[in-house]
Amino acid sequence: MTEQVTTGTLVTTGTDVTRMRELNALSIVRALRGNPPSTVTELATRTGLSRPGTDVIVQGLVADGWLTVVEPDGSSVVGRPARRYRFNAGAGHVLGVDVGAHKVLAMLADLDGTVASTSRLPVGPDADPAARLAVVDAAVDECLTAAGLSPDEIWAITVGVTGPVDASGRTTLFTPLPGWASVNPAEHLAARFSCPIQVENDCKLAALAERWQGAARDADDIVYVLAGMRTGAGLIIDGTLRRGYGGAAGEIGALRAVRWLTAPSHLENCASLPPGIDTDNAAAWVFNAARSGDKAARTAVRRYTRDLAVGTAALVLTLDPQVVILGGGFSRSADLILDHLARELARTCLRVPEIRASTLGAESVALGALRLALNEVDARLFGMGLSTPAAPRA
Amino acid sequence: MTEQVTTGTLVTTGTDVTRMRELNALSIVRALRGNPPSTVTELATRTGLSRPGTDVIVQGLVADGWLTVVEPDGSSVVGRPARRYRFNAGAGHVLGVDVGAHKVLAMLADLDGTVASTSRLPVGPDADPAARLAVVDAAVDECLTAAGLSPDEIWAITVGVTGPVDASGRTTLFTPLPGWASVNPAEHLAARFSCPIQVENDCKLAALAERWQGAARDADDIVYVLAGMRTGAGLIIDGTLRRGYGGAAGEIGALRAVRWLTAPSHLENCASLPPGIDTDNAAAWVFNAARSGDKAARTAVRRYTRDLAVGTAALVLTLDPQVVILGGGFSRSADLILDHLARELARTCLRVPEIRASTLGAESVALGALRLALNEVDARLFGMGLSTPAAPRA
Repeated sequence: MTEQVTTGTLVTTGTDVTRMRELNALSIVRALRGNPPSTVTELATRTGLSRPGTDVIVQGLVADGWLTVVEPDGSSVVGRPARRYRFNAGAGHVLGVDVGAHKVLAMLADLDGTVASTSRLPVGPDADPAARLAVVDAAVDECLTAAGLSPDEIWAITVGVTGPVDASGRTTLFTPLPGWASVNPAEHLAARFSCPIQVENDCKLAALAERWQGAARDADDIVYVLAGMRTGAGLIIDGTLRRGYGGAAGEIGALRAVRWLTAPSHLENCASLPPGIDTDNAAAWVFNAARSGDKAARTAVRRYTRDLAVGTAALVLTLDPQVVILGGGFSRSADLILDHLARELARTCLRVPEIRASTLGAESVALGALRLALNEVDARLFGMGLSTPAAPRA
Repeated sequence: MTEQVTTGTLVTTGTDVTRMRELNALSIVRALRGNPPSTVTELATRTGLSRPGTDVIVQGLVADGWLTVVEPDGSSVVGRPARRYRFNAGAGHVLGVDVGAHKVLAMLADLDGTVASTSRLPVGPDADPAARLAVVDAAVDECLTAAGLSPDEIWAITVGVTGPVDASGRTTLFTPLPGWASVNPAEHLAARFSCPIQVENDCKLAALAERWQGAARDADDIVYVLAGMRTGAGLIIDGTLRRGYGGAAGEIGALRAVRWLTAPSHLENCASLPPGIDTDNAAAWVFNAARSGDKAARTAVRRYTRDLAVGTAALVLTLDPQVVILGGGFSRSADLILDHLARELARTCLRVPEIRASTLGAESVALGALRLALNEVDARLFGMGLSTPAAPRA
């Protein structure tokens, strides 16, 4: 950890004991989060605080509910075994909601990001905003009930939607959902939840999820490509999700010249496609047929990938990322896409990044929503000092 | 200024008097840099330090050469007027060198970025690496001589080149200069200079310059487009110049689909172009003819701009910047380009940023090189504490 101090403040205010104790409490919580349960002695070593001082602060954090005691298992042979303490990840919870064209997926997790409950409810692609919001409410309710929590026990919510999200939390520039451009999902949820509520673009959230728990855990410079009947992108540069000045970063797909708008039509128009298969299932049929050696299907997949590669090359040449993650529904067929995509990028790009398939599948957007909600909680937790755990007000 | 402290360190080490004095010296230098000369009382107020403590540190900084005394002008009517102190920007100097196809431009500046000397020497586009490096040396020598400085008084150097710069400081992926891919300009200059030497891409440096002194001073999210017989881009996101994972960010122009590779050919192939005009002067002729109403020339400029807009739209849709800066040689004809470019972007982009012409012209790359060299100096100055001014060793 680096030390950055404002010298003037230090010299003129001196040591403020209350503030100091708060900062020391924070450093103990930091030292425990994401680590196995630890003894007071271990925590003192890890934080550089004195052992007696650490003990006092740890007991205070236990009383406030931030830490829980892990009783020794009695297997120690010499003397009294030491108690261990763990961060009480259950002190608070967050919600992530993926509002898609065909489904709403809600997930509820504790402060460690461990998922406590999940609800996936179908919704029609033509559902009007009120109907879609009713499904959002139902999915959220299912999650809360399954976890035995009430709305006022949720500390942060993120809602994922398709299309660029403006400063007000609306998708006014573009959305494929009927009537949805004027909907403010945060405002809708704020009627029942008093915690901070964010709305974010689905591709951006999926990118966050891949860096958190998926295929890009080792990377700071990531181009995430959501490949499906719609193609989109989420960009992480220098470890930070990039929204753009007006929330519209990653929308390269809107440019006709890079062919993402028309790429999926190669699959829909595959010559060997049997009659009667609807748009939603055509792509899956073509990928399966290609895997079985169907010649027209293989051609369709090759043409799709060639067009997918143009927009991907535009992103790679612009940003020079460490890794490209192929996600979205079509990433289930990454075995048919990745090699050809890599060859196309090698042909067109100056420096070719690693290309990997998503490992999170259909849950990536909701998981990314959980991650963004946890980021919100962390910013409050580590930015303001620790009081007794309680849901923050928006 | 925000306060970030490592609590453990604070508590266990307590107040380290020497380090504290050093940090206080830094905060006084910070308070003076870029500000008008100030009295000890003003500095004490600005830094939050005590007046006697400030006085002691200021006298130390004057003795070390970091500050100079500005004697009062005697116009005060009551009592003895107070001395003022200014940051001694002349304590060190930096060099910025733009190595182009047709010229080498070297600039030398003090620690405030005030240019002390400039040298612009021609070089043939077909010059081999040894010949080009000899011109670099000559331009640098002219700058040093004009400023009355020796190589060991230079604190940092940045060299700007065309093409993506890899970690070794070479343009191995691509360079239009004959034989230049294997040249390491930093290594060449290190034979005479012991300070840190960086090599950076010309478009990236021009972007830095526009944010420092040019058309993008108010922006943190900037797409800089270098428009000339070659088209390139430099990207600043969240206030930071983005290099990409391998130094190849901004190279969207390499993608045939976005038309930057062929855009200038509309100017070279203009039907009304008189015979005998060489490539280097064709574009200027066409822009002038278009300005005078020549129909074929106006068509050529319109076609050029339409193609320029495709790659620019790819950058805008990817990054959603606050502002696009049109720079490079063709920005002298921004009056013919900007409106049409804005219309094309409005047609293709979801959110259209402001579009502005560069105000720095042909000096933008060298100025950006100065800025990057100053950043290097600042990182050392504010990262390590102040000793007596001296050129750092690389």
